[in-house]
Amino acid sequence: MSELIPRYRHPDFSRPELVSAPVVRTEPAPADGVVPRNFHGTSNHPEYVHLGGGRWVLAPESRMDSVLIFDGGRLEVVEPRRVKKGQQVVVGRTENGEEGIYVHTDGFVSAEQEATDKFVFRSRGTRETPFSRSYDELYQVLRHDRDHGYIVWVLGPAVAFDQDSRAAMQGLIEAGYCHALLAGNALATHDLEGAYFRTGLGQNIYSQELQPLGHYNHLDILNEVRRAGSIAAAIEQLKIEDGIIYACEKKRVPYVLAGSIRDDGPLPEVIADVYQAQDAMRVHARRATTVMALATQLHSIAFGNMVPSYRIEEDGSVRPVFFYIVDMTEFSADKLANRGSAQAQAILTNVQDFMVNLWNNLKEG
Amino acid sequence: MSELIPRYRHPDFSRPELVSAPVVRTEPAPADGVVPRNFHGTSNHPEYVHLGGGRWVLAPESRMDSVLIFDGGRLEVVEPRRVKKGQQVVVGRTENGEEGIYVHTDGFVSAEQEATDKFVFRSRGTRETPFSRSYDELYQVLRHDRDHGYIVWVLGPAVAFDQDSRAAMQGLIEAGYCHALLAGNALATHDLEGAYFRTGLGQNIYSQELQPLGHYNHLDILNEVRRAGSIAAAIEQLKIEDGIIYACEKKRVPYVLAGSIRDDGPLPEVIADVYQAQDAMRVHARRATTVMALATQLHSIAFGNMVPSYRIEEDGSVRPVFFYIVDMTEFSADKLANRGSAQAQAILTNVQDFMVNLWNNLKEG
Amino acid sequence: MSELIPRYRHPDFSRPELVSAPVVRTEPAPADGVVPRNFHGTSNHPEYVHLGGGRWVLAPESRMDSVLIFDGGRLEVVEPRRVKKGQQVVVGRTENGEEGIYVHTDGFVSAEQEATDKFVFRSRGTRETPFSRSYDELYQVLRHDRDHGYIVWVLGPAVAFDQDSRAAMQGLIEAGYCHALLAGNALATHDLEGAYFRTGLGQNIYSQELQPLGHYNHLDILNEVRRAGSIAAAIEQLKIEDGIIYACEKKRVPYVLAGSIRDDGPLPEVIADVYQAQDAMRVHARRATTVMALATQLHSIAFGNMVPSYRIEEDGSVRPVFFYIVDMTEFSADKLANRGSAQAQAILTNVQDFMVNLWNNLKEG
Amino acid sequence: MSELIPRYRHPDFSRPELVSAPVVRTEPAPADGVVPRNFHGTSNHPEYVHLGGGRWVLAPESRMDSVLIFDGGRLEVVEPRRVKKGQQVVVGRTENGEEGIYVHTDGFVSAEQEATDKFVFRSRGTRETPFSRSYDELYQVLRHDRDHGYIVWVLGPAVAFDQDSRAAMQGLIEAGYCHALLAGNALATHDLEGAYFRTGLGQNIYSQELQPLGHYNHLDILNEVRRAGSIAAAIEQLKIEDGIIYACEKKRVPYVLAGSIRDDGPLPEVIADVYQAQDAMRVHARRATTVMALATQLHSIAFGNMVPSYRIEEDGSVRPVFFYIVDMTEFSADKLANRGSAQAQAILTNVQDFMVNLWNNLKEG
Repeated sequence: MSELIPRYRHPDFSRPELVSAPVVRTEPAPADGVVPRNFHGTSNHPEYVHLGGGRWVLAPESRMDSVLIFDGGRLEVVEPRRVKKGQQVVVGRTENGEEGIYVHTDGFVSAEQEATDKFVFRSRGTRETPFSRSYDELYQVLRHDRDHGYIVWVLGPAVAFDQDSRAAMQGLIEAGYCHALLAGNALATHDLEGAYFRTGLGQNIYSQELQPLGHYNHLDILNEVRRAGSIAAAIEQLKIEDGIIYACEKKRVPYVLAGSIRDDGPLPEVIADVYQAQDAMRVHARRATTVMALATQLHSIAFGNMVPSYRIEEDGSVRPVFFYIVDMTEFSADKLANRGSAQAQAILTNVQDFMVNLWNNLKEG
Repeated sequence: MSELIPRYRHPDFSRPELVSAPVVRTEPAPADGVVPRNFHGTSNHPEYVHLGGGRWVLAPESRMDSVLIFDGGRLEVVEPRRVKKGQQVVVGRTENGEEGIYVHTDGFVSAEQEATDKFVFRSRGTRETPFSRSYDELYQVLRHDRDHGYIVWVLGPAVAFDQDSRAAMQGLIEAGYCHALLAGNALATHDLEGAYFRTGLGQNIYSQELQPLGHYNHLDILNEVRRAGSIAAAIEQLKIEDGIIYACEKKRVPYVLAGSIRDDGPLPEVIADVYQAQDAMRVHARRATTVMALATQLHSIAFGNMVPSYRIEEDGSVRPVFFYIVDMTEFSADKLANRGSAQAQAILTNVQDFMVNLWNNLKEG
Repeated sequence: MSELIPRYRHPDFSRPELVSAPVVRTEPAPADGVVPRNFHGTSNHPEYVHLGGGRWVLAPESRMDSVLIFDGGRLEVVEPRRVKKGQQVVVGRTENGEEGIYVHTDGFVSAEQEATDKFVFRSRGTRETPFSRSYDELYQVLRHDRDHGYIVWVLGPAVAFDQDSRAAMQGLIEAGYCHALLAGNALATHDLEGAYFRTGLGQNIYSQELQPLGHYNHLDILNEVRRAGSIAAAIEQLKIEDGIIYACEKKRVPYVLAGSIRDDGPLPEVIADVYQAQDAMRVHARRATTVMALATQLHSIAFGNMVPSYRIEEDGSVRPVFFYIVDMTEFSADKLANRGSAQAQAILTNVQDFMVNLWNNLKEG
Repeated sequence: MSELIPRYRHPDFSRPELVSAPVVRTEPAPADGVVPRNFHGTSNHPEYVHLGGGRWVLAPESRMDSVLIFDGGRLEVVEPRRVKKGQQVVVGRTENGEEGIYVHTDGFVSAEQEATDKFVFRSRGTRETPFSRSYDELYQVLRHDRDHGYIVWVLGPAVAFDQDSRAAMQGLIEAGYCHALLAGNALATHDLEGAYFRTGLGQNIYSQELQPLGHYNHLDILNEVRRAGSIAAAIEQLKIEDGIIYACEKKRVPYVLAGSIRDDGPLPEVIADVYQAQDAMRVHARRATTVMALATQLHSIAFGNMVPSYRIEEDGSVRPVFFYIVDMTEFSADKLANRGSAQAQAILTNVQDFMVNLWNNLKEG
């Protein structure tokens, strides 16, 4: 494992208070989507439960505000709404082992402080916080995880409104830096609008000049894709040959488009049911090793709530999950930090500048 | 009609270019949810179509980015996704009558400039813009529309996080100042959390002290309501006796809770399908005479897109719809203004202060 | 002393490491305005120096980034630019006693945690943080310090742009809630403009309507006051009878107007030399027990840098200095917090709403 | 003249209402720093006065909120505080010629609309506004004005806090892209701190790690420069070899450091009297053809108030002055726009990213 990625240290289960910890308890769910009153709510930190005899099991792919199901010898982190009646739910609200539950918040920091520190921005970044070293490390992380990880991008529509940043994102996808893309109807619509009309919300994406009747363009592209029946069919029929969605289709990079009450259209692929959309996003949250969340408060916070702070690799080793939020305001990052997603690192800048910088640095490999 | 409410003036259809306007044209929708290529997209301004012989009809309850269906002699504004195959869709992209379509952007301003001006904030309000007169007029508008209009509140969760603002909103509902409430899962959850635990996201709503294990409170209230099966049943079983949702239930004020990918739970009443949620919100958009949108960018913009700028009263008269956005940042208001909802008026302040001020001024009638 | 005001506990100088601490060392300043290379830079916390024999002296009125002069048995906190050649400057950069200097950061928190906690906002307030309890305590603090403290207001021009907030500030001054006012040329100019023309930057302060040629008003009032030769003379000649500056003059509340490169005019009383202005502000910083800083980033941060976190009363007791920043954005508060002014408490709201609320609650005494 | 720079068209003085315009009137100033009551206040647009017989003279180097002195046949724009008793001040408050004063607001737009439009950003830029074309044009403007204009940079301290942006600014100065630099004590102090300690406010400017006792660094560098007596002497004695101030000294680029009440130190070159600082800044305002204002609200607005929107070249031709504000928030740009500096163009981004991008594009000439 690269020295970029700090080593993980399991808790010391030989400590007396953990040796004497009871076996974890469970209670059956009283109904579908309802959990026992004393349920244990998970964090996004590594959480262990004691199965007895000193055997502690690490919950895979934990996330915030879910529960632990322990059924048939298998431990799983599940959203309460997905729990089925009768499933055995871990109960107990302590985190120090006294009910057989141990939350390990410092697995990456103790022995490897130096290595870890490298990834920590100033604790309270403001718009004056500089980023040059952070950028250097970000480039290394992305190069590493392109080949040995799973990079998930969460994009707001601003990325598609500028020719250069849109081209940068296309380049990153084509170069293998994106394993999954999460967005809403607007990002995909405006990206396709850019491909077909060279506009974003009716403005030329290069010159930013408003086009005559340009406010129709996003409605027209929505209508065209709906007429074609799918994005893939529309790309072919409309001879679309560039952009973010085009690159995903060409490189078979999966994307999830989650619906929102602001949507026009929507595109046929947009998932109208937000809880089904959460499930589809969760598939990628389980695999993510680095998350790049750009210019979307709603999706960044939603995905931040479902991403673990760690990942268990196939060989059983544990690594951190990096989470970068790129936005103009402190709000999203503060909000995630307040809710426990302490690993979120904020880069406060214009996402279009960010994308262009990033691609300039990564495009030569 | 009160002098608060500016009088509306229909266009002068005796002007030569309108006298000579052709009859509006329609084409059938080629498939469900697909419209003809040359469809006319609506604004939220009053729009008229020419039926021939100098008869112009005003579209009722127009909204942004929809189409006009003219079937069976009845003109209706419909979202493209709801159009059925074969329905007759108005086509044409001009707005000056030359295709039989006329968009009337200054119906409220010409003769009554003085009266109208009273409702206009400085064109580009910043955080230094003062509001004392605006407040006085807002109080008058709300008193008027309590009895003669339809006031829709669009609320973000911040309103429920403070004891005083939560109580103010409850007071406003009980006093008849709220005809419909639009919100998300979070507002309702934290309001019920406030009622049951006296906390908002685990913090005491009066002292703001974090409660021990308080971060479980919103998960617990979600679990309790899901166990009860409905908000109404939970209010009874949990003996909830105050708050925003309680007041809506007690006063039978309809509320729409729209789902989002950020939701925990959700509460049973939350509408998971965002397009069904849009339809439910649209029911109130058609009736609204004043909209109060507080501390929620997503819902404010979503609802702003679906509210007409005018309303046809039962007696056929036309009045403006007032739309106030109360938020800490210029972003939402600017965004709505950029998309054409020019009538949105921004009040830049902390919503909790705003609510307390408002209720202090309205509670004595 | 009121229970509102937490008790102060001196350090325990009987602790072995402090008993064995050396006597503090000084070196002479090498030139006017230049300090010895190893100078000790002060914080705004209570700082003690060891004079020998276990006698530790608390520096009076400490502030950030100054030095300790120990001359003739008297300890004083002085800005480096004001140090005279040959004055004895305390040297040493440790804070734990090992060089005879001890910085006491938790004098107010240990025994009185409960009392103190009442004054602590959530550590990382955002625009969603509620304030109702904070307001209640603020009212109590202001009532207490009106009679037993020294309340300094630091005002940006926004307070004068609105009729209601301007009247509220006038009321507070007249009711004894303001012992000194710090501001810039703009606040005073626009307040006088409000008194003479009923406008602020040309807009009517009640209706916010732009007046014809209203952009001349602030230039005209500047010209009139300059013609009169002083604010006091202008108030008499122009028959000014309301406002913030009027109330200060009438109640003989001292005010400091500091110049800035943005100024028009300026008014005759504005101090053109910013370091003389700092000195004039510092006079009030030494006496302040509560600071209310509203809507001015520049003056808030400047004054925050010069206010101690504590005050030694005449009877020798020590109390905290409260510092409230009221602004629309997190920026000022974060900035002060990053520079060590941890006692700064942010209230994020529109200052005009804030003023009206405050006066509504305080005007009945 | 390059096609980048739109051609200027003088007003058509043969229009009847201008032909019949009276000769402009003046009145003597009643005292030093006091102007006649009916004084004409200038804008930053081209302003003409009628001397009789159809002879109109264009005021050179106009600025906002000053007056026109017409003495000895020479027309000059002067701040009211600098007017001497008895000087002849132009009076009249109309702008259409009826008092012999004509303000020409559209000299650059009429005939050359296409060319001009290129420089106009979207009227109400938000954080989602893209900039790629604007950047391309900015590069061309800077290349042009390096050789044929006068580029003034107005810098906040953020530019010096990051190694890459600091190096970019040094590069721009060395390559001739900066004819004058305006800043405060903080920018110069932190730039010199970066040169001597490799930190900015105690944080390593590359790694952003806090250095031990790093908060002393800016105080130590201030003390060292004050000891040396001047920045130039300190650069030599401390063997400083990089940075923004170093580059200015080496290339003999003039810089103005204006004092503020937030300053520590200050550096010896800082101008303590803000009105003297205004005068020093005004020297460069008169010559500016392009202004780059980065990350400083105070200095941007101050300089924006004193920069004309046009410049009369030595050959008598008139060209526009470009004014770019680069900042994270809309506030500065909105504020300038509200006060009439309509030519200010906002680029909303992190200034460090901006600087790196800019230098990457300009460094090859």
